[in-house]
Amino acid sequence: MLYLVGLGLSDETDITVKGLDVVKRASRVYLEAYTSILLVDQAVLENYYGRSITIADREMVESNSEEILRNAQEEDVAFLVVGDPFGATTHTDLVLRARELSIPVRTVPNASIMSGIGACGLQLYNFGQTVSMVFFTDNWRPSSFYDRVKENRTIGLHTLVLVDIKVKEQSLENMMRGRPIFEPPRYMTVGQCAQQMIEVEEERKEGVYTRDSLAIGAARVGGATEKFVAGTLEELCSQDDKLGAPLHSLVLLGKRAHALENEFVRHFAVDKEKWDRIWKEEYGKQ
Amino acid sequence: MLYLVGLGLSDETDITVKGLDVVKRASRVYLEAYTSILLVDQAVLENYYGRSITIADREMVESNSEEILRNAQEEDVAFLVVGDPFGATTHTDLVLRARELSIPVRTVPNASIMSGIGACGLQLYNFGQTVSMVFFTDNWRPSSFYDRVKENRTIGLHTLVLVDIKVKEQSLENMMRGRPIFEPPRYMTVGQCAQQMIEVEEERKEGVYTRDSLAIGAARVGGATEKFVAGTLEELCSQDDKLGAPLHSLVLLGKRAHALENEFVRHFAVDKEKWDRIWKEEYGKQ
Repeated sequence: MLYLVGLGLSDETDITVKGLDVVKRASRVYLEAYTSILLVDQAVLENYYGRSITIADREMVESNSEEILRNAQEEDVAFLVVGDPFGATTHTDLVLRARELSIPVRTVPNASIMSGIGACGLQLYNFGQTVSMVFFTDNWRPSSFYDRVKENRTIGLHTLVLVDIKVKEQSLENMMRGRPIFEPPRYMTVGQCAQQMIEVEEERKEGVYTRDSLAIGAARVGGATEKFVAGTLEELCSQDDKLGAPLHSLVLLGKRAHALENEFVRHFAVDKEKWDRIWKEEYGKQ
Repeated sequence: MLYLVGLGLSDETDITVKGLDVVKRASRVYLEAYTSILLVDQAVLENYYGRSITIADREMVESNSEEILRNAQEEDVAFLVVGDPFGATTHTDLVLRARELSIPVRTVPNASIMSGIGACGLQLYNFGQTVSMVFFTDNWRPSSFYDRVKENRTIGLHTLVLVDIKVKEQSLENMMRGRPIFEPPRYMTVGQCAQQMIEVEEERKEGVYTRDSLAIGAARVGGATEKFVAGTLEELCSQDDKLGAPLHSLVLLGKRAHALENEFVRHFAVDKEKWDRIWKEEYGKQ
């Protein structure tokens, strides 16, 4: 059996009792460690589970799944995923390959940022599609997120923006020279995300949002140090110190937002007076 | 401290290790039991936790939260919610009341149907807003869900339809006579949901979907007996036997669906030939 086990959002105790039982019994344990991270190290997990864990990087999962699935017709393999196992495309692919090999698959669900974000006080029913934001470079500034945000904003819905993480990345030079040297991990902040959003609006000029659009910065959702900061996109460009360590994400408010949502969220506002003024002018009327 | 503890989707072992620790330590334990249910009884939970649980019905949570929050400035109170604590409005309200009383609040997230539905093989990124479907009566047939589905379909997104549950409901006669007699619980099925969707399309005639639109019926998502059945809305009207016991939910496919999603989902199709024909004609082209 292939078990896809969600680890939740924060630390080693966010695994479910069911999931922990699977990990303790499995013949082999893999940890998918490139689409998201927990706030604790591999060693903490290994110590807590009483098991050694094999880190599965993108290459292993996408190109070398034979090793993960080896003999899973006969024995139990646990594939651990931060959040819920079905947040990212890759794991659908792993299940399809398991099906081809007649390996039964079972999922142990857990909290995902896509539902956990509800803790900021916005109603999950009022979210449109989720988008991703990658680190822009000089010559790669993908803005397809902007079209999706536009669709959500047109019907008044909130947008959850998941931000880029770079782990086990090689510099161009190291890659070309075949040197297995990796850059230190990078985690996009709310400030970087808000800044890139403003830049894209200034390039595309379709008026999907402005510097004064209301948004929420979220850090370490579901953890003991969970932190929300609400403000305009411009304000959120400079709140990274307040938000603290990774992982971050951002929510752009939709105008259909309800008064009860505002009552909850304004509590987190950088500048409550400004927040209230913009809310009153533009939100909660649909 | 008020702890909002998510219980996940299926049975007593879906609680997280962190959540279980909170339940064992808390002075009082409440279970919110009107927006969703686990697949196991209260007695199973009580036995597993080694604690007695107070069932919190809608009236208690919405009108009598003082009892739940009593002395939570000093002691720990655990408020258990099936799925993730922030799935439903009511709990936002409880947090707001706790804030007024200077009671600190902490959330222990867990799987929600809104993320767990990813197990059907559709990408969470491709879902629009979630809608709810209530049991229609002769003179109450709310169809606001139809407008929301229309918005999602217009931009090609999937729609998760959460279906009604009725627990602790009184008949009109018993209510008028003040008799505390409650009807047996009722859980809407995928078949009832699909039927009501078709009826509303026939009334509204805006062509948001047809009898032949592709959809997925889901039952007991995240549980050991999880079951998915894919087909047209018409086909799903008669698949309740195959789906089995509650809880059910339904996903209406958006036309922006990706070929990889189809590869996963067609596995569950009632009639693969019909599914493939409709897919080829109408889906995956955006």
